[in-house]
Amino acid sequence: MTDRIAAFLKDRAYDGPRLVVDLERVRDRYLDFARVLPDTRVFYAVKANPSPEVLSLLAELGSCFDCASIPEIEMALAAGASPDRISFGNTIKKEIDIARAFAIGVRLFAFDSDAEIEKLSRSAPGARVFCRILCDGEGAEWPLSRKFGCEPDMAERLLERAHVLGLEAYGVSFHVGSQQTNPQMWDRALATVSGLFRRLAERGICLRMVNLGGGFAARYLKDIPTAESYGHAIFEALCTHFGNRLPETIIEPGRGMVGDAGVIEAEVVLISRKSDQDSVRWVYLDIGKFGGLAETMDEAIRYPIRTPRDGAPAEPAILAGPTCDSADVLYEKTPYPLPVSLEIGDRVLIEATGAYTTTYSAVAFNGFSPLKAYCI
Amino acid sequence: MTDRIAAFLKDRAYDGPRLVVDLERVRDRYLDFARVLPDTRVFYAVKANPSPEVLSLLAELGSCFDCASIPEIEMALAAGASPDRISFGNTIKKEIDIARAFAIGVRLFAFDSDAEIEKLSRSAPGARVFCRILCDGEGAEWPLSRKFGCEPDMAERLLERAHVLGLEAYGVSFHVGSQQTNPQMWDRALATVSGLFRRLAERGICLRMVNLGGGFAARYLKDIPTAESYGHAIFEALCTHFGNRLPETIIEPGRGMVGDAGVIEAEVVLISRKSDQDSVRWVYLDIGKFGGLAETMDEAIRYPIRTPRDGAPAEPAILAGPTCDSADVLYEKTPYPLPVSLEIGDRVLIEATGAYTTTYSAVAFNGFSPLKAYCI
Repeated sequence: MTDRIAAFLKDRAYDGPRLVVDLERVRDRYLDFARVLPDTRVFYAVKANPSPEVLSLLAELGSCFDCASIPEIEMALAAGASPDRISFGNTIKKEIDIARAFAIGVRLFAFDSDAEIEKLSRSAPGARVFCRILCDGEGAEWPLSRKFGCEPDMAERLLERAHVLGLEAYGVSFHVGSQQTNPQMWDRALATVSGLFRRLAERGICLRMVNLGGGFAARYLKDIPTAESYGHAIFEALCTHFGNRLPETIIEPGRGMVGDAGVIEAEVVLISRKSDQDSVRWVYLDIGKFGGLAETMDEAIRYPIRTPRDGAPAEPAILAGPTCDSADVLYEKTPYPLPVSLEIGDRVLIEATGAYTTTYSAVAFNGFSPLKAYCI
Repeated sequence: MTDRIAAFLKDRAYDGPRLVVDLERVRDRYLDFARVLPDTRVFYAVKANPSPEVLSLLAELGSCFDCASIPEIEMALAAGASPDRISFGNTIKKEIDIARAFAIGVRLFAFDSDAEIEKLSRSAPGARVFCRILCDGEGAEWPLSRKFGCEPDMAERLLERAHVLGLEAYGVSFHVGSQQTNPQMWDRALATVSGLFRRLAERGICLRMVNLGGGFAARYLKDIPTAESYGHAIFEALCTHFGNRLPETIIEPGRGMVGDAGVIEAEVVLISRKSDQDSVRWVYLDIGKFGGLAETMDEAIRYPIRTPRDGAPAEPAILAGPTCDSADVLYEKTPYPLPVSLEIGDRVLIEATGAYTTTYSAVAFNGFSPLKAYCI
């Protein structure tokens, strides 16, 4: 929560759930990343929050952009980024979209498979490409499946193949898992990456770049490492594994850039019990899984929630959204402590919701509008 | 799949995932419900698919509408339904929305808690109200939490309280769980409901209506009961528990009305493996969890998928969506058998997707547009 957000909310009549993002906080976070990793280029993960105001601010500050699709590339360009500051970072691309990105001037692409190299060699000839390797994601709070990346042995073969097909085998990327609170995880991945660099160099292919991915935590309920500790751990790991021949590096913060900058204001619609003997309350808000809080899936992300009655005695409550869908429950396995005196109509503040909320929100499930958002 | 949908898809160039709903199939399903339960009023669950064409067709056929919000009520009215054919079926309502619905002329409301009765007595004085009771949802494929409904003992007290507060204690509702393939489940719930009717009658409160809810299955991969077997089981259960004093009844089909009427056409974007030793393919489509297939959450709903190479030898594949989100995986725990000869660029048909797809789809996650939909 920031004073600017508090003032904004106070000035405007409530008419449904709304996200407010404080751009000063985003600026601070960008400058943090630039400070603690001075030789690393920042590619903001547009998917985390593609608000034009966020993109323009970051473009102005010198950020580059990690884009998942043509519309995201177009948004980054509209915000003032030149094509050489854009990475088409999705490993799953239609060939027609690769061709469009290449025509626009994008020259940096991710891949993790044979088929994707073939598409790239045909539709983005000579482009710089980097191969994403699998990483186990241990310690991350948002589940990391095996969806992206390939095993390092396969990456070695693929990078060689990219080189043979006339692409520039530029580097390797990995992702330690979103909301990764253990900075040491980068060390383990970098050990693998430096091995790849060495083995390919022996065959005359000189990789130049390591994409350190995202994973930088936003501050939810628990304490998280400081920007400094991420920067320090990463720099140490780079030195350990690359010695005095440090590669170019890039990072792709999304949640870590905008998560803490946003607050959602919502309203308590109903408080009830399921039987007269029930000790646990159900508290229903006017926002739920389908209105922007999709990351509560499996109760993965636990947002800080502030109420006007904080400080009064609290008891655990099951927290749910407003739709007629049984799955629209936010916290049930681990109920959320809320003041006993909480009342219907109270406004609650759901903090650290600047990332992965607006765009996740459903177009009109149950007739409810998508989450409104303001950048200030 | 219907011939009309096949012809429609053939005539229009592909430009991204699209849902096509065959209105003749919807009409058939409505007439099925009307035939097998002739004395039961049908309240279509608008949330399943609120396309104006679907709503207009059903309004014309005489259907009533179960609405979850003011926008859904407005859509039903715009489709030609009069307010007396609308139920505000969400048990979680803002009082301001209750007042708006009442002002529009809606007179039928759901509740399951003390607070909701208080709101209703203030803002919809004299309205007909029904209390939702908890049901265990055993046998349903879409998870049913304890989010809606209260224990029967509490329902008894609440209905009496509604009566005292000047509301018309009109009846009881329950929901046996979405995609409920065991028609006998209605029997168990009706035993409880008839007990409630009896106990309240002893205190001079004469309930009149049983809302049998939804739960009627769409045909995914497994065979499902026919409309006749649902109708027969429900009628038998009503006779068993209410004898010759049958209450008014209503049903709220959503998935059962429109699920089978829709087909999504999508495209294979990438086929890959995670290592050169991997035996399982990953198949990535241009639609996933955030583009309309949210019901694959926890692999709950398993859609039939047809490919142009069906009949050729098949092997299990992990199926995933196109976004840069690790959670955007459709079937992984139980991989999906797909032809070995499947190729990038192939179009697949995802059947029985008429319900809970368009409105679930995210506004713009990863920059991808919401699911396009056509009613023919």
